[in-house]
Amino acid sequence: MRNIKLIIEYDGTNYSGWQIQKRCKREDRGKKRTIQEVLEEVLAKILQDKVKVVASGRTDAGVHAKNQVANFKVESEISTRDLKKALNANLPSDIVIKKVNDVEFDFHARFNAKSKVYRYQISQKFLSCFDRLYFTYIPYILDLNLMRKEANVLIGRHNFKSFQSSGGKTKNTIRTIKDIKIKKRKRYIFIDIEADGFLYNMVRNIVGTLIEIGRGKFSPGSMRKILKAKDRKVAGPTVPAKGLFLMRVKY
Amino acid sequence: MRNIKLIIEYDGTNYSGWQIQKRCKREDRGKKRTIQEVLEEVLAKILQDKVKVVASGRTDAGVHAKNQVANFKVESEISTRDLKKALNANLPSDIVIKKVNDVEFDFHARFNAKSKVYRYQISQKFLSCFDRLYFTYIPYILDLNLMRKEANVLIGRHNFKSFQSSGGKTKNTIRTIKDIKIKKRKRYIFIDIEADGFLYNMVRNIVGTLIEIGRGKFSPGSMRKILKAKDRKVAGPTVPAKGLFLMRVKY
Repeated sequence: MRNIKLIIEYDGTNYSGWQIQKRCKREDRGKKRTIQEVLEEVLAKILQDKVKVVASGRTDAGVHAKNQVANFKVESEISTRDLKKALNANLPSDIVIKKVNDVEFDFHARFNAKSKVYRYQISQKFLSCFDRLYFTYIPYILDLNLMRKEANVLIGRHNFKSFQSSGGKTKNTIRTIKDIKIKKRKRYIFIDIEADGFLYNMVRNIVGTLIEIGRGKFSPGSMRKILKAKDRKVAGPTVPAKGLFLMRVKY
Repeated sequence: MRNIKLIIEYDGTNYSGWQIQKRCKREDRGKKRTIQEVLEEVLAKILQDKVKVVASGRTDAGVHAKNQVANFKVESEISTRDLKKALNANLPSDIVIKKVNDVEFDFHARFNAKSKVYRYQISQKFLSCFDRLYFTYIPYILDLNLMRKEANVLIGRHNFKSFQSSGGKTKNTIRTIKDIKIKKRKRYIFIDIEADGFLYNMVRNIVGTLIEIGRGKFSPGSMRKILKAKDRKVAGPTVPAKGLFLMRVKY
């Protein structure tokens, strides 16, 4: 039995996120497919075997990935080179396999992940049609230095309950944010957040809060109060999924 | 009567090019819409007047534009600021109006254009899913210095008949190429061509020929022979539309 690791890039625009969902309800019938579903179907076809692919974590509907990590176990003797070729030839062009490697049998893409880096992409001034699926347009002038200062409050081990959207079922809301970087390049702003784990919509709720601070809707010092409150209602809005990228998983 | 100039950006993926086409034939019914058609409809709605928009030149199906220039005449008293806002609010997100200006009454986007710059975008190594609509994947190793040397043969006033696809109805196939630049940035190659005018598929046929030279399929010195031949059959293949951008129009 082999354990195969994949590094996957995907454009989440046309998917209901990573994870396969049960479609029992009538209202689910029109739903988009998931990355896992499409990938497992193509793998079954290539390997002539049913495999279950485990990713570092699910990404939500509309969220993109530059380097999602996943693994699966299989008996097949196909070379990693041929497997990569066959995958990219059979997958739709919005899912790309960047690497295929044999790894140790006990490697687990989710359990072994030490941290993940997400990036949120903002366009100021105007939203180019070429950026429309990958950037969120924020027309307001943002005080980036204030945003950086307030973001620093979040670094470390904290209870991030204020930044978990309803629908998140996780009871233990303590996580460790290792780093937050806010960069500006021309009209673009990139917010990179590295943590050992993320609650439901946590990045999008933190970014929504930082924007409220940056445009002066929330006063300086708000971040500490919001974090302490442990109440989703006091934080900023959830920014759209299309600006969010899973950039890297560290092991 | 006012003469209004627009600077327009569009993602050509979902359009049959710039120009409105007659749809008389049965096989045309499934065809995609054109940029001009969508823009004129939105303008008619905003201005409550039927206007005809003239562009610097038509772009073909699937070709993109970063700064297409167009103009139209109208009686309306709407401010350029409000017009820009209304246009962007009503246009689909793959067409963006970057500038709206009142110009002199005799300005004509096509007749006054002195030159146009097109860019062709190539991705080597792999085609990222985020580049799939805007880059052409060329896996071969390319000799860029040889390509630059051969491209220089085309600069100047020449008969470019060898680079006009069939279907091009222009009888006068003499044009002046002012500049060709081939740049490499990481895994990307950008080929910029500036000319006073372009024949049907001229950029895509020149790029296809340069690639054949760069990968060693055509020998050094081929470009001069191909140009002299005045025969489309001796030039390289037409590269896909999705890698082509109208970058700038000079007046």
